[in-house]
Amino acid sequence: MNRLVVQKYGGTSVGNIERIKKIAERIARLRKEKIDIVVVVSAMAGETDKLLAMANQISAIGKDRDMDLLLSSGERVSCALLSMALDSIGCPAISMTGRQIGLLTDNSHTKARIKEVDTNRAIKALEDGQVIVVAGFQGINEHGDVTTLGRGGSDTSAAAIAVALKAERCEIYTDVDGVYTADPNVVPNAHKMNRVSYDEMLEMSSLGAKVLQFRCVEFCKNYDMPLIVKSSLVEDSKGTLICKEDSSMEQPIVSGIMNDKNQAKITIKGVPDQPGIASKFFTGLADENLSVDMIIQNVSDESQTDISFTVAKAEINKATKVVQDLGKLIKARDITTDTNICKISIVGAGMRSHPGVAAKMFSTLSKENINIIMISTSEIRVSCIIEEKYGELAVRVLHKVFDMDKTLVNS
Amino acid sequence: MNRLVVQKYGGTSVGNIERIKKIAERIARLRKEKIDIVVVVSAMAGETDKLLAMANQISAIGKDRDMDLLLSSGERVSCALLSMALDSIGCPAISMTGRQIGLLTDNSHTKARIKEVDTNRAIKALEDGQVIVVAGFQGINEHGDVTTLGRGGSDTSAAAIAVALKAERCEIYTDVDGVYTADPNVVPNAHKMNRVSYDEMLEMSSLGAKVLQFRCVEFCKNYDMPLIVKSSLVEDSKGTLICKEDSSMEQPIVSGIMNDKNQAKITIKGVPDQPGIASKFFTGLADENLSVDMIIQNVSDESQTDISFTVAKAEINKATKVVQDLGKLIKARDITTDTNICKISIVGAGMRSHPGVAAKMFSTLSKENINIIMISTSEIRVSCIIEEKYGELAVRVLHKVFDMDKTLVNS
Repeated sequence: MNRLVVQKYGGTSVGNIERIKKIAERIARLRKEKIDIVVVVSAMAGETDKLLAMANQISAIGKDRDMDLLLSSGERVSCALLSMALDSIGCPAISMTGRQIGLLTDNSHTKARIKEVDTNRAIKALEDGQVIVVAGFQGINEHGDVTTLGRGGSDTSAAAIAVALKAERCEIYTDVDGVYTADPNVVPNAHKMNRVSYDEMLEMSSLGAKVLQFRCVEFCKNYDMPLIVKSSLVEDSKGTLICKEDSSMEQPIVSGIMNDKNQAKITIKGVPDQPGIASKFFTGLADENLSVDMIIQNVSDESQTDISFTVAKAEINKATKVVQDLGKLIKARDITTDTNICKISIVGAGMRSHPGVAAKMFSTLSKENINIIMISTSEIRVSCIIEEKYGELAVRVLHKVFDMDKTLVNS
Repeated sequence: MNRLVVQKYGGTSVGNIERIKKIAERIARLRKEKIDIVVVVSAMAGETDKLLAMANQISAIGKDRDMDLLLSSGERVSCALLSMALDSIGCPAISMTGRQIGLLTDNSHTKARIKEVDTNRAIKALEDGQVIVVAGFQGINEHGDVTTLGRGGSDTSAAAIAVALKAERCEIYTDVDGVYTADPNVVPNAHKMNRVSYDEMLEMSSLGAKVLQFRCVEFCKNYDMPLIVKSSLVEDSKGTLICKEDSSMEQPIVSGIMNDKNQAKITIKGVPDQPGIASKFFTGLADENLSVDMIIQNVSDESQTDISFTVAKAEINKATKVVQDLGKLIKARDITTDTNICKISIVGAGMRSHPGVAAKMFSTLSKENINIIMISTSEIRVSCIIEEKYGELAVRVLHKVFDMDKTLVNS
């Protein structure tokens, strides 16, 4: 067996025919080093949004199964085009849809989870000396219906295929040259990290770092698959390596600061304070496949309580409907929503050995008169929900306070 | 079982969201009459050309398998959108790709032939009260690869599905209100026919009448499936019924006149006049899946001969290459091509009982000083290859000479 690399190119990287040709040349060069290559592609930039806009013109809530058929078509186009481009420069290639690469998922349309990758056909194609070009983002369920893996799902396709084929590494090509300590558009002193641990990257991805999909990192972590993020627009981009934590190195206390604007809060007032009531809401939301992030429960008087929680902004309407229906049943007093919030998070493996990080974050925000609405923490993360308008300010002051303006040890 | 109608909507009919919504309403109305419906859709107008243009930017000759993956994506988009539109107005629908409707084809990518329609899933969906929306133009081969049925293949999808499901009729909705005696843009007196026989329609379709794909008519003829062409843009379009010949009716001698501009001529000069030589060329062309239309062979001197034949204009480059390669082997003197030709054809079931039709056609063209380059005939058709620039003139004079300017008996 040759060495095998799985590469994924995002929408900007395959955004037009010129770029597709450039990528084909890049792949053909790597192929000359006797490396087997599987390439996963996203839809051409803008295509998925165009399809979504058409669906929205028809109906506010399109059927998920149709949505998957609709949205999966974009990746099939870029997949076929890249395969043609490779062949046209003498690099034998074969295009494969999610079904053809054997990517089997569960039945959760629009956010399907991968159950298995049946690699038979892929292995045969690699043995035949072909570069495999895969339509990302999509799989197939037990009924033979097309499913999609959620926005950014091509990253996950790439990771799952890399793991299934025991690739040497999984490379994610995008329009930025790696993972940054903070959004460089907000923090001028933000800088690219050379290395991030899986755990840190998982936290960052779940916090809205769009550079990598959460489940992609999760897959790579679970199977210890080296994951590299780099730019397809720059030659010799070094990128950021996401790998196991390296205990021999000095860890920075905070590696990254994120501002997740994709947050909305729902508050249910006057909920009877009885066992099992709160669980009704969250079971109802889970049944609709809605993810709840932070949850706070306050006792407002002896018999009633208020429950607040956050969901993704895109799901606020669906979630509100579920909560309103259940709220009527249990006679809740009122239900309010707030979409003008954001979640500021600091992430760093170094937090484990440095107490007081959360306190330092709270006091920093407080000094700027930024009110903290909700708090959640993990072993290597502290997150605060604040008013959306303070988001950029919060990121800048935290970046400075945690000494991230200077280049860090591991970068 | 309810009555079942298969409808097919072309690219213009699903050209934008407004039209898709209109079609959904039309289908929902028919559904209220307790009629089961399968709807086959083409790609939105312009989409297939856009995809083709991208492929051409990459490579002059894209791999056929990739081409099929690429081109089939357009129909999947319109299929998903129409299914959503139906659901959004309370008409339960299910989208199906070529694979899901069970349309199995051979392995001839870009011009696959249907081997079988496995109707299990479709029958179940109809029993569940769902309108089935099918992505036309595509099927799947034994390897699980997407195949397409050739340009206009959605008509064939519809016919094959209508036959397999034993539909009452197959309706083809397009942007014209039926089949005309000649192109109304060329002949102001051309008029729509109410009825055409399968055989006449087969001749017209193979002659470049774009209103129906040949294989669609062939399917319907073989299984005696009533086929109706009508406009989706006009309410209550009566259309043209394509059905068995009705011997009780007076047949017009000529029903339709066609001008097929999609013709190109290849001439091989100085071919050794030995048995088996001509067959070498035509076997070579057939091996590349290239269809040859007319063939003429002239003996130029005792040991050598010239062979001329026509192919589709789009295939002239591919065909010329095949002929050149073989021409070198057999030491042919020269190979020339001519793309400035067209094929004028008159079609009519009434020709069977009226001798002298061909002679009348030749003398009419001759009176206009139009040179006839090649001739071919069938029982109900006479075709002449002439210079392309005389095409419109020829159609107009023939339309007049064969008394078609007045409305015919069967229209």
